Amino acid sequence: MSLTISIDAMGGDFGPDVTIPASLDCLKSNPELKLILVGNEAVIKEKLGNHLEAYRDRLTIHHASQCVDMDEPPSKALKNKKDSSMRVAINLVRDGLADACVSAGNTGALMATARFVLKMIPGIDRPAIISTLPSIHGHTHVLDLGANVDCTAQHLFEFAVMGAELVKAVENIESPRVGLLNIGEEEMKGNEQVKAAAKLLEASSLNYIGYVEGNSLNAGDIEVDLIVTDGFVGNVALKSIEGAAKMIGTLLKQAFSKNLLTKAVGLIAYPVLSSFKKRIDPRLYNGASFLGLRGLVIKSHGGADVLAFKTAIRLAEIEVKQDVIRKISQQVEQNLSLGMHS
Amino acid sequence: MSLTISIDAMGGDFGPDVTIPASLDCLKSNPELKLILVGNEAVIKEKLGNHLEAYRDRLTIHHASQCVDMDEPPSKALKNKKDSSMRVAINLVRDGLADACVSAGNTGALMATARFVLKMIPGIDRPAIISTLPSIHGHTHVLDLGANVDCTAQHLFEFAVMGAELVKAVENIESPRVGLLNIGEEEMKGNEQVKAAAKLLEASSLNYIGYVEGNSLNAGDIEVDLIVTDGFVGNVALKSIEGAAKMIGTLLKQAFSKNLLTKAVGLIAYPVLSSFKKRIDPRLYNGASFLGLRGLVIKSHGGADVLAFKTAIRLAEIEVKQDVIRKISQQVEQNLSLGMHS
Repeated sequence: MSLTISIDAMGGDFGPDVTIPASLDCLKSNPELKLILVGNEAVIKEKLGNHLEAYRDRLTIHHASQCVDMDEPPSKALKNKKDSSMRVAINLVRDGLADACVSAGNTGALMATARFVLKMIPGIDRPAIISTLPSIHGHTHVLDLGANVDCTAQHLFEFAVMGAELVKAVENIESPRVGLLNIGEEEMKGNEQVKAAAKLLEASSLNYIGYVEGNSLNAGDIEVDLIVTDGFVGNVALKSIEGAAKMIGTLLKQAFSKNLLTKAVGLIAYPVLSSFKKRIDPRLYNGASFLGLRGLVIKSHGGADVLAFKTAIRLAEIEVKQDVIRKISQQVEQNLSLGMHS
Repeated sequence: MSLTISIDAMGGDFGPDVTIPASLDCLKSNPELKLILVGNEAVIKEKLGNHLEAYRDRLTIHHASQCVDMDEPPSKALKNKKDSSMRVAINLVRDGLADACVSAGNTGALMATARFVLKMIPGIDRPAIISTLPSIHGHTHVLDLGANVDCTAQHLFEFAVMGAELVKAVENIESPRVGLLNIGEEEMKGNEQVKAAAKLLEASSLNYIGYVEGNSLNAGDIEVDLIVTDGFVGNVALKSIEGAAKMIGTLLKQAFSKNLLTKAVGLIAYPVLSSFKKRIDPRLYNGASFLGLRGLVIKSHGGADVLAFKTAIRLAEIEVKQDVIRKISQQVEQNLSLGMHS
């Protein structure tokens, strides 16, 4: 089975300084993997040095003359950057030359380009962004994380169907538990879309466990594998969690650097603190998948370092191996034709 | 100036076991404060013991024969519990016998009862729930936290006007920085309501600083005093943060209790860890205010312990002293008549 991934080598805050060392590490650790590095050939060659020769059977460079800026409006990127590393990396997926594409480039441009080049799976209205968060119970998959600000019940249902299939494949579990994000007050349980989505989910063959609240993303009482919400709420929740983690980390560091004594204690506690930090290291959760497209596109955090970018490439490897796009397309055909006409 | 607060002594998961010790502590630390404990007289008297005599000039008991259950539907509480400790405590505010009411009872019932008994400030459509979160910069006020699932731009604007006035009074700052919660993707900056609310805020006399993202609740790059959002998003964000904090706390504890060595390190690090914990102790941020009503109602967390419930009473003391309701009513009259007709 083929396992070829195209890498937008120029994307992200650090471009080739991150994407190339990460790519080399992944080639080293998975002998099945083939990579196509897309971007400025001269720059990539220089960065690769003699590694290009070492991996010549599994590593190719595909030249692209342009780069999409991190703050470039998606419409401009789409119109003016037809030879960008991002666009060409996605073209390779469309043309069957790569099985997936990984980019740390700007989310809006990546989404717009992927949608334009790859097209949607028939039956799916809109693409959604899914990613993984650490939780007390292990981890939780969440979608949509920002692609769709206003969602109908049908959209939320589509997200659930696609997300459940992804979780099934990636986690190798038969029937992922699906929760619908809602608020806890009795009187006012949810808006109309959420209530209607709950009915669609109850009537479906999915393992729907009901409403979950925001705390379930990281630490709910009920274990849940997939949490479904609209892109506005999902994005705010994700960033709220990032903010909470950042604040806690900062205050913890401050507490240990208050004076000489606390610094000494910090040195003693260092191994414990770093084992703790590793468990929630966001770099180990890097990589969001765009669902609903006819090809695999993985978005890495723009500020990813080598470890984080490697995590995103590995996610792509797993999704290719698990044949996620084919499985999702099948599910959509089976489940959503029904959902849509109901 | 009068400073009398009615306490729903029976409310919350622990009722008088928490509300009464907290009330006594507050009476002790503020000699101006007068409290009316509302609930089952016999139970309260027994709990008070000889403290009733000690504080007899500042502490009264007001008997109420019923309790609202923590899971009781608001409509039922409103209909069947006319002599509940919650209802009677709010009646005292309406009748001018108390300047504010504090309850740890069920949020939905408290909101419905407060709205029914106290009525809305003219010009305000819906009440909103505002509370405070710790942040890297100090702390942030946020509303709405769950009273309104669907909000128009006008509602969001009302929240901003009321919230800014509260922050001004409580924090003693002249022009609180107001941010509107939104998502960060360029292509899709916000839904229609948020975009329209931004226009209202830009045109207002408020110190509007623009869109902020979820991470600004705890740890944004930009300092902000008040973050405005609808009740669905606000509630999910708040609970997501609670979940993140719980997960981090749990994993930190796990890391230190792994084996004998890590436990020993934990003992050494204990003073540092507890000074850190204190900084984000949710008990020190307990107490949410219902804005838009013609009287002050503070909602304490249902699971509040004595320290947490004391924090909620102190918040009520500050809001009474700062004459928050009068100030908000004035602002509403000045700002919203304009906003509403535009």
